[in-house]
Amino acid sequence: MTICALATAPGGAIGIIRVSGPQTLEILSHVFRGSGDVQTYPANTIHYGHIVSGTEVIDEVLISVFRAPHSYTGEDSAEISCHGSRYILNKVLELLIGNGCRMANPGEYTMRAYLNGKMDLSQAEAVADLIASTNKGTHQMAMSQLRGGISSELSRLREQLLKLTSLLELELDFSDHEDLEFADRSELFELTKTIDNHITRLAHSFETGQALKQGIPVAIVGKTNVGKSTLLNALLKDDRAIVSDIHGTTRDTVEDTIDINGVTFRFIDTAGIRQTTDEVEQIGITRTFAAIDKARIVLWLIDAYPTQEDIQEMQERCKDKSLIIIINKIDKLEKVSAEKLSSHLSPLRSNLLSISAKFGTNLSELESAISLAANRPSFQENDIIVSNARHYDALIRAHEHILRVIDGLQMQLSGDLLSEDLRLTLDTLAEITGGQITSNEVLGNIFKNFCVGK
Amino acid sequence: MTICALATAPGGAIGIIRVSGPQTLEILSHVFRGSGDVQTYPANTIHYGHIVSGTEVIDEVLISVFRAPHSYTGEDSAEISCHGSRYILNKVLELLIGNGCRMANPGEYTMRAYLNGKMDLSQAEAVADLIASTNKGTHQMAMSQLRGGISSELSRLREQLLKLTSLLELELDFSDHEDLEFADRSELFELTKTIDNHITRLAHSFETGQALKQGIPVAIVGKTNVGKSTLLNALLKDDRAIVSDIHGTTRDTVEDTIDINGVTFRFIDTAGIRQTTDEVEQIGITRTFAAIDKARIVLWLIDAYPTQEDIQEMQERCKDKSLIIIINKIDKLEKVSAEKLSSHLSPLRSNLLSISAKFGTNLSELESAISLAANRPSFQENDIIVSNARHYDALIRAHEHILRVIDGLQMQLSGDLLSEDLRLTLDTLAEITGGQITSNEVLGNIFKNFCVGK
Repeated sequence: MTICALATAPGGAIGIIRVSGPQTLEILSHVFRGSGDVQTYPANTIHYGHIVSGTEVIDEVLISVFRAPHSYTGEDSAEISCHGSRYILNKVLELLIGNGCRMANPGEYTMRAYLNGKMDLSQAEAVADLIASTNKGTHQMAMSQLRGGISSELSRLREQLLKLTSLLELELDFSDHEDLEFADRSELFELTKTIDNHITRLAHSFETGQALKQGIPVAIVGKTNVGKSTLLNALLKDDRAIVSDIHGTTRDTVEDTIDINGVTFRFIDTAGIRQTTDEVEQIGITRTFAAIDKARIVLWLIDAYPTQEDIQEMQERCKDKSLIIIINKIDKLEKVSAEKLSSHLSPLRSNLLSISAKFGTNLSELESAISLAANRPSFQENDIIVSNARHYDALIRAHEHILRVIDGLQMQLSGDLLSEDLRLTLDTLAEITGGQITSNEVLGNIFKNFCVGK
Repeated sequence: MTICALATAPGGAIGIIRVSGPQTLEILSHVFRGSGDVQTYPANTIHYGHIVSGTEVIDEVLISVFRAPHSYTGEDSAEISCHGSRYILNKVLELLIGNGCRMANPGEYTMRAYLNGKMDLSQAEAVADLIASTNKGTHQMAMSQLRGGISSELSRLREQLLKLTSLLELELDFSDHEDLEFADRSELFELTKTIDNHITRLAHSFETGQALKQGIPVAIVGKTNVGKSTLLNALLKDDRAIVSDIHGTTRDTVEDTIDINGVTFRFIDTAGIRQTTDEVEQIGITRTFAAIDKARIVLWLIDAYPTQEDIQEMQERCKDKSLIIIINKIDKLEKVSAEKLSSHLSPLRSNLLSISAKFGTNLSELESAISLAANRPSFQENDIIVSNARHYDALIRAHEHILRVIDGLQMQLSGDLLSEDLRLTLDTLAEITGGQITSNEVLGNIFKNFCVGK
């Protein structure tokens, strides 16, 4: 069936309507008036004309014609470039539907691209990630995945697994020769361990992928009135200013996240950051334990000598976190006392910075410190990072299957007993790229979160 | 200079970046990797490739190539179809700017189209109106203007004015023959009157144009608790439901306007419609006089016998309005009393309807009545409607100039004294299509309200 949908966000100067399917050009011939016959337009050409409904001219448009299999979906398709009025765009869609199209489901163009062999499943998923990418990190992950990064990684794994399978078969063939078996087993064991390491490494990269996607959790803690919300607002504002749009695109305000060097940091909503309460000022750090627990980076904001208890408490709490101690209000504190404070805190051996949240002093130094403290995700441009929960799930299950192979090898199980687990490992990994038959239900779940028009 | 901008709204599946100017293809050659040399791509063709920044791949894109003068702007230009991520779109724009483009100003593409003779000024303005069109009425006006409706109307006027000018010159040539003059003057007078009628008719259409653009003002009046806000919400909801988007485009919620048969009705914010007050219930209609004054259509909502004073008051107030009396709460009122009420109100000789705002009973009948009451703007598909304040202003000034010609003719002024006003009339009308030299400042004002990317 031929489908249509708006592929751009409504509200711009132009709006693009995508049509894809075998009847694309025939349907267009009923609604488009240009020079010559639409149905004879060559592939990859652009044509000026009008979208008409009877005698009524709906819009002056350009249509781009693509022909199977050299199109995004692999089908005949077209893009209609309209004026970006919702009224017009709705009218054109109505007209297309009236002439035999149906509205595309979310992600249906990309699903068709997958079903027509234009890309594998992990690449199809990367399309959605690419569209959703908001910074260098998420963009790079999605682009690598779209360009087949994960696919090629998996095909390497597949080769190794097939090698393992053939070695097992070889072992079965020579099973009469008892002296051969031991040597083979040791090689098999090493190869299996290597495969498992590979799978485990990919699965572990999911943590980095998630951190890149969702932002690294940061907690700002400190006494009431020490300037937590001023600091948060200063960091947010600074980020907004940096990315402020000279480009005429307005950035969605993502509440309480900042981007530093292409990595997103997400501030954990701690009680006291957003609210000013009437409670006693001296609350210490106890109230924000929950926030600290969830954070990977803790910004401890102080403007006076913390008690020894607070220091010990913080030391304990932040054992496996990156702690940055920030002396705020340096505009008010005298230089001497700030220095004293520093030496007082030196036992914590954490990063120590003096700032003025109010006046923005040393904010960029703080941002560098946060970026440094992120530590992970540090990844190289060509690293393969798993960012998709479905892939992670498959990798974990593949890991479990291969572990059974390893156990079986250690227990000296015979090859035919191991081959089932090997097959399961292969099948589970194949789910990621969709190489194995993938049910409609699974496909539906994958594509339902796509935007319409992609 | 070569300019670039995002032409679609950010946030969709795809985003289109427009590049226009003499260096378009040369700049693209630095950032686009496709098959072959971008600079040799033929006009009106589409090419697959990658936008790259050094070794980093920013996006997989399609580029559409247009060549002067056969493009929207009349210059060499290109459209880059990217994945709709803001990060990507910003990166691509940065890259283009880094390679010699500058960001386009609002409306700059259309301004270039005008300056390069691709359209006249009224057509250029129609582009913005077309993009902003939200219903059949505004769409039709903008489309007619874009297709040269106003331009051709003005060229007819210009012909008549030139004819008048030449007749005046003829008169001057024959000014020695006193017997000839009288006959000529009567013809001149008739022709001038015809021209003025034409100008005045166009100027008058502005009211319709404004009503179509901004919505016809409707006031809902009535006692507290008679159901005014329930009715308003029911009408708004009904409209939202009708236009509810099967198309995946979300409609901007335009507060308190509804579309009926392609015409927008705008509800005047009357005290008491949105608020419920603690004041005494029996307030009558006096409180809403202001709303009535501003309205063209008045919906008088009642649920009991109005006093004779109220009826007279309303009759007086709505002399030049369309009054629709609505008996609300028919679910509660007994049939008999509703009928009695009708006969009680019959002296008003207005439209009378029974509804239940709460249960949505007879809402569509009410909508038909509102649509009918709109009366104006009634316009035919080919009517020329002036909807632009700049055009209206020029028409009014042209009318004043031509009036001076009429006065001069009546005062038997000589032709050379009349020709200056005739010239002013011509020049003033020419402002609309931009035929006369138009200053940068004027152009700047016209295009500054365009969106970027158009």
